[in-house]
Amino acid sequence: MTRYIFALSFLFLFTFSNAQEKKRARDYGIEIGVMASGNLNAITDVPGVKVGHQTLIKGDSVRTGVTAILPHSGNIFQNKVPAAIYIGNGFGKLAGISQVQELGNLETPIILTNTLSVPMGIQGTVKYALALEGNENVQSVNAIVGETNDGYLNDIRGMHVSENDVIAAIENAKTGIVPEGNVGAGTGTVAFGFKGGIGTSSRKLPESLGGYTVGVLVQTNFGGVLTINGAPVGKELEQYPFSSAIKKSDGSCMIVVLTDAPLDARQLERVAKRAMMGLAKTGGIASNGSGDYVIAASTAESMRIPYQTREKFDTGDVLRNDHMSSIFMATIEATEEAIINSLFMAETSKGKGGHTIQQLPMEKVIPILQKYGVIK
Amino acid sequence: MTRYIFALSFLFLFTFSNAQEKKRARDYGIEIGVMASGNLNAITDVPGVKVGHQTLIKGDSVRTGVTAILPHSGNIFQNKVPAAIYIGNGFGKLAGISQVQELGNLETPIILTNTLSVPMGIQGTVKYALALEGNENVQSVNAIVGETNDGYLNDIRGMHVSENDVIAAIENAKTGIVPEGNVGAGTGTVAFGFKGGIGTSSRKLPESLGGYTVGVLVQTNFGGVLTINGAPVGKELEQYPFSSAIKKSDGSCMIVVLTDAPLDARQLERVAKRAMMGLAKTGGIASNGSGDYVIAASTAESMRIPYQTREKFDTGDVLRNDHMSSIFMATIEATEEAIINSLFMAETSKGKGGHTIQQLPMEKVIPILQKYGVIK
Amino acid sequence: MTRYIFALSFLFLFTFSNAQEKKRARDYGIEIGVMASGNLNAITDVPGVKVGHQTLIKGDSVRTGVTAILPHSGNIFQNKVPAAIYIGNGFGKLAGISQVQELGNLETPIILTNTLSVPMGIQGTVKYALALEGNENVQSVNAIVGETNDGYLNDIRGMHVSENDVIAAIENAKTGIVPEGNVGAGTGTVAFGFKGGIGTSSRKLPESLGGYTVGVLVQTNFGGVLTINGAPVGKELEQYPFSSAIKKSDGSCMIVVLTDAPLDARQLERVAKRAMMGLAKTGGIASNGSGDYVIAASTAESMRIPYQTREKFDTGDVLRNDHMSSIFMATIEATEEAIINSLFMAETSKGKGGHTIQQLPMEKVIPILQKYGVIK
Amino acid sequence: MTRYIFALSFLFLFTFSNAQEKKRARDYGIEIGVMASGNLNAITDVPGVKVGHQTLIKGDSVRTGVTAILPHSGNIFQNKVPAAIYIGNGFGKLAGISQVQELGNLETPIILTNTLSVPMGIQGTVKYALALEGNENVQSVNAIVGETNDGYLNDIRGMHVSENDVIAAIENAKTGIVPEGNVGAGTGTVAFGFKGGIGTSSRKLPESLGGYTVGVLVQTNFGGVLTINGAPVGKELEQYPFSSAIKKSDGSCMIVVLTDAPLDARQLERVAKRAMMGLAKTGGIASNGSGDYVIAASTAESMRIPYQTREKFDTGDVLRNDHMSSIFMATIEATEEAIINSLFMAETSKGKGGHTIQQLPMEKVIPILQKYGVIK
Repeated sequence: MTRYIFALSFLFLFTFSNAQEKKRARDYGIEIGVMASGNLNAITDVPGVKVGHQTLIKGDSVRTGVTAILPHSGNIFQNKVPAAIYIGNGFGKLAGISQVQELGNLETPIILTNTLSVPMGIQGTVKYALALEGNENVQSVNAIVGETNDGYLNDIRGMHVSENDVIAAIENAKTGIVPEGNVGAGTGTVAFGFKGGIGTSSRKLPESLGGYTVGVLVQTNFGGVLTINGAPVGKELEQYPFSSAIKKSDGSCMIVVLTDAPLDARQLERVAKRAMMGLAKTGGIASNGSGDYVIAASTAESMRIPYQTREKFDTGDVLRNDHMSSIFMATIEATEEAIINSLFMAETSKGKGGHTIQQLPMEKVIPILQKYGVIK
Repeated sequence: MTRYIFALSFLFLFTFSNAQEKKRARDYGIEIGVMASGNLNAITDVPGVKVGHQTLIKGDSVRTGVTAILPHSGNIFQNKVPAAIYIGNGFGKLAGISQVQELGNLETPIILTNTLSVPMGIQGTVKYALALEGNENVQSVNAIVGETNDGYLNDIRGMHVSENDVIAAIENAKTGIVPEGNVGAGTGTVAFGFKGGIGTSSRKLPESLGGYTVGVLVQTNFGGVLTINGAPVGKELEQYPFSSAIKKSDGSCMIVVLTDAPLDARQLERVAKRAMMGLAKTGGIASNGSGDYVIAASTAESMRIPYQTREKFDTGDVLRNDHMSSIFMATIEATEEAIINSLFMAETSKGKGGHTIQQLPMEKVIPILQKYGVIK
Repeated sequence: MTRYIFALSFLFLFTFSNAQEKKRARDYGIEIGVMASGNLNAITDVPGVKVGHQTLIKGDSVRTGVTAILPHSGNIFQNKVPAAIYIGNGFGKLAGISQVQELGNLETPIILTNTLSVPMGIQGTVKYALALEGNENVQSVNAIVGETNDGYLNDIRGMHVSENDVIAAIENAKTGIVPEGNVGAGTGTVAFGFKGGIGTSSRKLPESLGGYTVGVLVQTNFGGVLTINGAPVGKELEQYPFSSAIKKSDGSCMIVVLTDAPLDARQLERVAKRAMMGLAKTGGIASNGSGDYVIAASTAESMRIPYQTREKFDTGDVLRNDHMSSIFMATIEATEEAIINSLFMAETSKGKGGHTIQQLPMEKVIPILQKYGVIK
Repeated sequence: MTRYIFALSFLFLFTFSNAQEKKRARDYGIEIGVMASGNLNAITDVPGVKVGHQTLIKGDSVRTGVTAILPHSGNIFQNKVPAAIYIGNGFGKLAGISQVQELGNLETPIILTNTLSVPMGIQGTVKYALALEGNENVQSVNAIVGETNDGYLNDIRGMHVSENDVIAAIENAKTGIVPEGNVGAGTGTVAFGFKGGIGTSSRKLPESLGGYTVGVLVQTNFGGVLTINGAPVGKELEQYPFSSAIKKSDGSCMIVVLTDAPLDARQLERVAKRAMMGLAKTGGIASNGSGDYVIAASTAESMRIPYQTREKFDTGDVLRNDHMSSIFMATIEATEEAIINSLFMAETSKGKGGHTIQQLPMEKVIPILQKYGVIK
């Protein structure tokens, strides 16, 4: 275990320096969409939501990790939340899909990691759930574990994530500012040919539209023609799929959407679909090899679904269909901005086999953003 | 029938003047995406594809019509084509969904019209199919009839489309340039608060990627924050959903994607999903009230599915999964451009109850496009 | 219109004699399943549900009709009901699928008719809805129109059903005993090689399980190895698919499931899936050419969804997942019995081209049922 | 590892005695359906198919195991097979769903185990695949791991299945007779209140219908009103859900359908749906807590999908839609019989906490089968 402590220490220094140098999209004056963001412009603007990262950087070839998103601070198995999963492109290994779709709820934290660590992701999440007070007799747990493939920078075949890493990510989860970029499940990912990673954003609806918050967190590892708030950055940099016949654009994106709006599973599936529209605006094409999944859940307390109860009914009032459009728009905007944030906050990384992926070259990107009126 | 002749004459003059004045996106120097368009930049770039419009403009309240898209010139019932339907948002009345999804093929022209004219759309299509030579014993026809709601400009409750209008649209279908804007099923539609209508575009893959053509035709009647090749036009014009608490963004978009790439139903469903990503790039949000459907079909001759045959097998070679990404990207680009073309080609229209919808105000739009580097 | 009056008179006599001679499954002592049926053993045991038939028997080749099922007696458009549609096999033309799936509700009566009369089914239903008091400004109606193909006995290409027939079926709908067999949409259908038609059944849960009623109505027109409460009747009669290499089993089944249990759309989709399990128990195989659809809706007053309201929320309490199994079992049983009832109540019919379909030959069936212990 | 050797030795003796005493349904003269079974009446009648079991019986509380089904003997990752997954009821943890649905193929053996051993199931399958010759550079593997919950007899929370158990099940797989009952993933399962387990059956179509074989293997762990070839055994034994208000029927069923018919993913999804109809005929109700999944794949050599190739096309001829019905019927029959076989071959088992589940009491069942004409 000592090597892990080293890794974590390293991480601490790393993110500290990161915090000094890197800026999010809004820090550059980039305003995506027309709606207001929440206070932190993060998924943690949704009350009660926590995010935890476990970052694994070891030697010259381990560049991976785990990110855990908790819809609330209680025992999620005992107090499930309404949820839905939408599959943008299904070339991926997300665990837990069918039970969410059948029962309309989530019963564990949402875990993100690398493709070949999904089994440890499930194992860790299940053990975490089984060990919770009150779950002593539980014999079935539906872990939600998403992934993207960080095998270019990371020794993915080495399967370096352990079940304890997963539990650590869950237990480290906190409210407040969410570290972005090369952290947790984003440690080794690549997006649009640049270093990707974890990104987040949020939107807060005006009171006239219900005052709800929509928060998004992404793990970016996909390709396309990078577009930043409308500016064709990938095109200008001549870095996009098929720019010669040999370039590829495969990869994946995991998107988590949480909201305190009281939505049921059907409404949440509609919300989840819109997240792919936000991804589209960044230039993503959901290429053949992409595993693009959206997990959406409602954190509204009135919508909690107790595991065992004498009640025969779920009782929460549900937002009507005709009040959904503003939530859709908020989801699109927050997803687009979360993806851009993941790129802005990621740093150049060198990993397995000496592979290096450059961070977004801001010195080139800023003039393009200016040329296209995105910033002054 | 005499009144129809008058309407058609009127239409002729109308579209004639239209052809002189209106310009498509590319005519302004707007280059959407990174791939080359086909020769006509229209769905009819896909070999053999025909489009026909029947435009109904009568008195001061009939502003509607029918558009027919034919994947090939033969008897489609006898030589079905692989097809799929993807539902972006299902608040609509598209007829024919389940059979396409079950059997993986289309057996009629694709018809677009207004919401309350779907029954006449089916009736006309079925009668057309039953009357074709060789179909004398056919007792079941799966008509594909999509719609958007043109009830703001059109007396939709009057149900003015007849089965003969539908048959006329099919029989008038031709290859070559496709009339856009206020024609056929686009006669009375509204998009982003401006006059929408029919639009089309295409992409031609380089030979190294197979040399296939992807063609898209749209009927635009939806809302959102209009974005033209990245430029936030809706935001600049302060015309977008929720800009005050009272504005609405409902509406719908029908999208037809045809390609000569040899794709089966599963691959076509993947293609259809990408069209919604093109819609997203124009600022559409797939609002609650939107019926957003994508119908995708392969026109490849090798993939035709004969109605009756002694053969026990379908024999066409199918493009492998790992060659799909370029077709996805082409679909996204052509859909985005088709939507923009529908707006550029539409003209101000006055209809039912004196309602008037303005065409896109190019005098205001051009400076915005310049400000955002879309045009010089 | 005079010829219709004649047809209706004829029908009256016909069903009168039918009522004297034909017996339902229970009248023979056949007890399907382990749960109690409702009072009438019909879909109308669900409080407020009405069924109407319009039977068209004209000359020697018109053998078709319309059946309307109303989930409640009010303006359904103004007070929608939660609903879902499950597609057992999609080779059919059911109209209205996507909107039900997207919004989770029904807004019209459910109409059943023949395959080529779906457009008139929609047209009639839409006109009925537009004309209702309070719907003066409605511009969009999602009609649910299912069908099976009665083209063996009926001149289906003649499209003899009119929109007025559809409206008549709706307006004639009543509570109480539901006519079965060769009535309405079942007039010309064929099941397992025998005369099929309309059938119905219900189950009433004990109070300890909620006391809910589940009612099913079917339009049977499909094939397989007829099995009556476990007895292999089709096998014994050597009348089943592939008994020689030439026999076919195509056809379809429309199944409507209504319940007063407070279920939302997700729960209703689960219920709808179980109806196909009831069909399976009768020996149906959902052959390639079958259009097997299940429409399920909740009539619970607490779950009504008003069309326009100042309320932002749907407020009805929803039965929890873990209380669904008894409703699933009731659905399976009632579907199985409704299908058997459709066969027992249908009578030999001669139609188009002199085609004759025999009713179930009870003189042969009873000994088989005795041999297999189904009856004494 | 020594304790495993003991367990396996024990198992050997156990199954040996089993082979002497237990009889399959056909050995009692029960003929399910109207089609001929294959030579072994097992999934291994499909040429090239192998099945392997790893049975874990340790102390008084470990009663679980792993079953592996291999569609062919080669490197499945390098030569994928067309596949589909249908979800009868999604309260389960089947891994690998979305990639199969997106890409239409399988790339690993199909693994069955208990609910909480899914992560080890994935881990073992992935490690097996990564280690195969030719897979040295593979970085992504989509393991298909299904489960049912054996927690009544088995200490499921102890997670006793290891990745090596999974690899052993794969490596032990063989053609020929398939052990049934309390073996592999069926070691601790319960069906209809009796001991369930692994069961298998097959159907061989006549040459006139293509001569294809359809093989089914099930892991039974579900409830309902047990029906054996139409005989209401559960009802007669008064052992069925809701017979009092306290009995439950939860549980799950995993169903694997393999065929040498050349079917693509769309056709296989249709096949998979029919397996649930076979389950329905045994009295299963797909209760709320059931995870009922069907995995269907084509073993036809012409349909193999190479992982890497210079070819741009998949070239296999695919059986036409209108030749599918006989395969549907074969699937229904083989599924029904496989479930019944799982019950007939299972033996009374005592496990965790002294829980005992009785085998089907043949001394009571046989008179019931005689009463209902199933056997003489």
